[in-house]
Amino acid sequence: MGCVQSFRELCDRPKNTNVRISLPAVCIVWQTAMIILFGVFIRYNEESDTHWIEQRKAKNISSDVENDFYYRYPSFQDVHVMIFVGFGFLMTFLKRYSFGAVGYNFLIASFGLQWALLMQGWFHSLDYSDGKIKIGIENMINADFCVAGCLIAYGAVLGKVSAVQLLVMTLFGITLFAVEEYIILDLIHARDAGGSMVIHTFGAYYGLSISWMLYRPNLNQSDRLQGSVYHSDVFAMIGTLFLWMFWPSFNSAVTDHGDGQHRAALNTYLALASTVLTTVAISSLFQKHGKLDMVHIQNSTLAGGVAVGTAAEFMLMPYGSLIVGFCCGIISTLGYVYLTPFMEKHLKIQDTCGIHNLHAMPGVIGGIVGAITAATATESVYGVEGLRNTFDFDGDFKDTVPTRQGGLQAAALCVAICFGVGGGILVGCILRLPIWGDPADDNCFDDEPYWELPDEEEAIPPILQYNNHMRNKDIVESNFSVEQT
Amino acid sequence: MGCVQSFRELCDRPKNTNVRISLPAVCIVWQTAMIILFGVFIRYNEESDTHWIEQRKAKNISSDVENDFYYRYPSFQDVHVMIFVGFGFLMTFLKRYSFGAVGYNFLIASFGLQWALLMQGWFHSLDYSDGKIKIGIENMINADFCVAGCLIAYGAVLGKVSAVQLLVMTLFGITLFAVEEYIILDLIHARDAGGSMVIHTFGAYYGLSISWMLYRPNLNQSDRLQGSVYHSDVFAMIGTLFLWMFWPSFNSAVTDHGDGQHRAALNTYLALASTVLTTVAISSLFQKHGKLDMVHIQNSTLAGGVAVGTAAEFMLMPYGSLIVGFCCGIISTLGYVYLTPFMEKHLKIQDTCGIHNLHAMPGVIGGIVGAITAATATESVYGVEGLRNTFDFDGDFKDTVPTRQGGLQAAALCVAICFGVGGGILVGCILRLPIWGDPADDNCFDDEPYWELPDEEEAIPPILQYNNHMRNKDIVESNFSVEQT
Amino acid sequence: MGCVQSFRELCDRPKNTNVRISLPAVCIVWQTAMIILFGVFIRYNEESDTHWIEQRKAKNISSDVENDFYYRYPSFQDVHVMIFVGFGFLMTFLKRYSFGAVGYNFLIASFGLQWALLMQGWFHSLDYSDGKIKIGIENMINADFCVAGCLIAYGAVLGKVSAVQLLVMTLFGITLFAVEEYIILDLIHARDAGGSMVIHTFGAYYGLSISWMLYRPNLNQSDRLQGSVYHSDVFAMIGTLFLWMFWPSFNSAVTDHGDGQHRAALNTYLALASTVLTTVAISSLFQKHGKLDMVHIQNSTLAGGVAVGTAAEFMLMPYGSLIVGFCCGIISTLGYVYLTPFMEKHLKIQDTCGIHNLHAMPGVIGGIVGAITAATATESVYGVEGLRNTFDFDGDFKDTVPTRQGGLQAAALCVAICFGVGGGILVGCILRLPIWGDPADDNCFDDEPYWELPDEEEAIPPILQYNNHMRNKDIVESNFSVEQT
Repeated sequence: MGCVQSFRELCDRPKNTNVRISLPAVCIVWQTAMIILFGVFIRYNEESDTHWIEQRKAKNISSDVENDFYYRYPSFQDVHVMIFVGFGFLMTFLKRYSFGAVGYNFLIASFGLQWALLMQGWFHSLDYSDGKIKIGIENMINADFCVAGCLIAYGAVLGKVSAVQLLVMTLFGITLFAVEEYIILDLIHARDAGGSMVIHTFGAYYGLSISWMLYRPNLNQSDRLQGSVYHSDVFAMIGTLFLWMFWPSFNSAVTDHGDGQHRAALNTYLALASTVLTTVAISSLFQKHGKLDMVHIQNSTLAGGVAVGTAAEFMLMPYGSLIVGFCCGIISTLGYVYLTPFMEKHLKIQDTCGIHNLHAMPGVIGGIVGAITAATATESVYGVEGLRNTFDFDGDFKDTVPTRQGGLQAAALCVAICFGVGGGILVGCILRLPIWGDPADDNCFDDEPYWELPDEEEAIPPILQYNNHMRNKDIVESNFSVEQT
Repeated sequence: MGCVQSFRELCDRPKNTNVRISLPAVCIVWQTAMIILFGVFIRYNEESDTHWIEQRKAKNISSDVENDFYYRYPSFQDVHVMIFVGFGFLMTFLKRYSFGAVGYNFLIASFGLQWALLMQGWFHSLDYSDGKIKIGIENMINADFCVAGCLIAYGAVLGKVSAVQLLVMTLFGITLFAVEEYIILDLIHARDAGGSMVIHTFGAYYGLSISWMLYRPNLNQSDRLQGSVYHSDVFAMIGTLFLWMFWPSFNSAVTDHGDGQHRAALNTYLALASTVLTTVAISSLFQKHGKLDMVHIQNSTLAGGVAVGTAAEFMLMPYGSLIVGFCCGIISTLGYVYLTPFMEKHLKIQDTCGIHNLHAMPGVIGGIVGAITAATATESVYGVEGLRNTFDFDGDFKDTVPTRQGGLQAAALCVAICFGVGGGILVGCILRLPIWGDPADDNCFDDEPYWELPDEEEAIPPILQYNNHMRNKDIVESNFSVEQT
Repeated sequence: MGCVQSFRELCDRPKNTNVRISLPAVCIVWQTAMIILFGVFIRYNEESDTHWIEQRKAKNISSDVENDFYYRYPSFQDVHVMIFVGFGFLMTFLKRYSFGAVGYNFLIASFGLQWALLMQGWFHSLDYSDGKIKIGIENMINADFCVAGCLIAYGAVLGKVSAVQLLVMTLFGITLFAVEEYIILDLIHARDAGGSMVIHTFGAYYGLSISWMLYRPNLNQSDRLQGSVYHSDVFAMIGTLFLWMFWPSFNSAVTDHGDGQHRAALNTYLALASTVLTTVAISSLFQKHGKLDMVHIQNSTLAGGVAVGTAAEFMLMPYGSLIVGFCCGIISTLGYVYLTPFMEKHLKIQDTCGIHNLHAMPGVIGGIVGAITAATATESVYGVEGLRNTFDFDGDFKDTVPTRQGGLQAAALCVAICFGVGGGILVGCILRLPIWGDPADDNCFDDEPYWELPDEEEAIPPILQYNNHMRNKDIVESNFSVEQT
């Protein structure tokens, strides 16, 4: 009886996880705010407005196919899949947190993209003639990119925070992202097609800093749940593969039309292929009997895509892409083997998905590769017009030379790290307030406090219930016969 | 022994579910009919025929990229994924009906798209010069759309019908759809880019009427199976997400080239994002402790895409899309909480997937939003040419004005509902005939009568079999030791 | 105690599966070789190089949209999904080999595509002016195609080989493929858009021959694991559906711009739809009670896509595509019912995934259909320019006539079979060397020797552990009470 009672106490205890007021309130109020802000600020841009048909003729554009929609929509859809299926399923690897992984990912991405359209719009797409933000396909892609930064941060705190905390984290994350992106791309004039710095470095340090602020010394109480099961690892591979396959679209989605998109996709394709081989090599080398570890296969195979992000549109050369992928597969896998346990033990950073290995280190490498590639660019390799075009040397920057651009790229990397760490510490403080419904230590990595879970008992098909029944009966009978003797 | 015998009787009893003659016969005969009808009627259209190269030059078309294939193929592939993976996996949530969900969805969609090419072809793509239907990429998209209506209807009867019944339901559903579509789009001249009326309203009322005709008073006998398990809910999220992500392609797939496709995708993207937040809010608000319900997350998050279907190509404005999504998330989730149980209890409509909440109500809302948006369209917002272009005011309809168009849209909505309800009752009568191999009440929601199921016992990995063995042994030994004392 | 000891021996025994040296060594060395070879040989092609902007102007190309990237990138991404998710998940059906299915597929495809870029580049994309291979989007697609051949072969040996063996198999497979492809497409001048001959026939016979060389007479020792469980069959359907849905992109990815791509996609779409119905028919007809078999639904539904590969770009006519699909669904399903057991018993070919039914037979049919369609092509059907364009009758082949082209197609089919069988026997000999870490007979179809597996025991949610505890307690008590009486 004591057992039953203590069991009931266990079930009834986590009252603090009740988000019945806070979660609906935040969702409704914030969504209402979005509607009002969209009503005041956001309109269709030239190419998504019905006036396009007149303007096309006025501007002597020969064909509807010149609408930016046709250049970017296939890439947008791929990026969209990466955000919702890729990130969502990548995090389903935990045995009892798949609902939270996919569901919260869905929620914060849906909020984040709206807020990103506004924040990025104010900085980049504001039409000063009427004070409106004009949006189209490129804004949709950039909003998804912006969301990616916050989803990376989610990876560090996966299973340890409530939906309300995640929404707060996303609100601030998107805001910080938009400012950081404006500084890096517009003020510093760095190039960052695939967002190695802007998205991955920022997002990862933002998440790691928050995780550091929310350190849980007794997290081992939920050790039981901090691992995968066979099927959850297969689910996670869905996320891995859709991220891996569509990464060429991610890195090429907002690059220049024509050769820019073409080259970015090709470089990413190659870097990712190379990463897979070195990840497998290191994973096998550091396990007893050379067995592979699913954690590495699920995560480190993606590091090449992160690291080639900045330089994907440059003349990195096919072999250059392979080298970047080669190094990142090794570094990222070694990170899982050595660095993640070290960080948890000595730096008090609990990084559920290992985003330090998948996004932070490869992101920094990507920034460095970008700086070096930019600094060493020459007219003989790029062509006169190609060089100007690739690095966008016009307007205020028409006198910039490659070496200077390399310096700008390096400066941009520092900005991304500072925003990530600084913003993360700030937001971490806010999230430590005891009002957000976060779970107790022994409720971490568990969907139970936040989701209506199906009754698993019913899952057993009738035939097996019968078998079980028979088997138990056999036991009873065998016992009985034992007793007889 | 009595137990074993009654168990065997249970296994042997559902002889009525034997479809060994009827299913192969229907498949082979109908497929043969398709081949003959395609042989008589269907040919390549101008853009998919080898003569295109000559005609392109004759018509002075500057480039191969003007072939409609390049405008629509990426959207087609996204729609295709929605039909087969989206609808298929959305229905895998039941614990023992995943094979039926994915498999029958696959079967009826494959048949349906062929029949749809013929039916829609006769109405829309008949070349009167030679009496042939000329098909290309747009026909492929429309065939997939047509199939979507029948797959929606499948959602209402999921787990309660046989494959043969589903094929019959699809045959009539496609036929009714093609007539209804012709009346709405060609005779009434309503606009319905994403098919809020034509596809969702029709499909949902068609399915609900059939389910009403096939009412099973003793369905609670299979209550045991009418629910999900943890993993099946994650599988269903694959369906949800692919539907959600690719819905912008669905609503923009057959809209005008250029700004039409661009705007439709943008509006749908925004409406869907908004829906997610209000769905989460209402789901949390109506559960004990604010827990989220996977049924809502899987389904209601999609309502915004349904409701924005008709108006997606209009100047709904970004905030307008958000408002539509906002309302539909609330209404759809409330539908799952209150309306589905009410309908089952009082209206005798058993709606397995809740299509009334996901397709019927949002579809009707979409029709109304479309009518209002059309009625309030002005030249100042659309531009002179834009208005004519968006609402296709030319030919016989060149004198139509927006207010009149609003009335036409409303009339179209009524037609869709009438076809759905009327057709559903008719087809429901046919499906009640006792010749289609439908399952008994206690065999519903179970793959067992229709699929060779793997023997689950084997699933247990050796290490666990050993553990189980040891544990049972422990029990025996502990019993034994109890006895000793 | 004896039981425990023998159990431990069982666990410790398969020392031969230790690949801790060989796997990392092969991955690192081969990847390093790739980097060196890419450095020496591979450069961007005209359209992915920064000089494109200048060359576009020089060549008077009107728009960036004429860059081949925009014609082929959406198809490429679909093909990429087929390779990694399609093939990978199709093979997850085994109950304990999902990690190996998805993971090794990932590994060998990532290596294979790099090696394919080199091999195919030397034959097709070598720029003789500077001795470099110039690559772009079409090379990426062709590399994925080349990989597909090796992944097909993997299907035959699934679960019976080590990762090192697979890498060796891929190295030789890609090499053979490139030579075979060069002979068929360039020397014989056969057309094979979707690779019925080049990819499927070659890949299947390559895999079957290897499987024949690696025949394991005592494979029944792992019978326990050579089957599916409910969830693994649903995972496999993810693979099936992504292959099925994107097959139109596969067959149209490298066909001519304009009507060529359009027609190839349409023909494939129709053939696949037709196949589903006949597969269901035959599957139901040959099972007791008309039940469907998941093996057939997962595999035979794809046969139409294979068989229409060669002729997809020809004027096969919509009904022709349906007929091809119709026949292949029947033949492929009958193959699973009769031929696979026959081959295992009498020909000593153990074909885990049944690639003979899914790729070999439909591939040969596809070659024959292509030969017939080519031989019967007429100017009245194709148009003068269309005929020349479709069959590429120019340069050295400007005097070729359709009947002769039919003969060339038939010759090409023979080449594909010879390369498959011959290459397979050769590579099979190499793979029989006892140095590759292949599993013992009773370790086949098991991830355990090669992967760190999660501890499944933990998967049981607390509530069930409690239930189990209680249930066992009940048994004990009931036994106890039995004893009391």
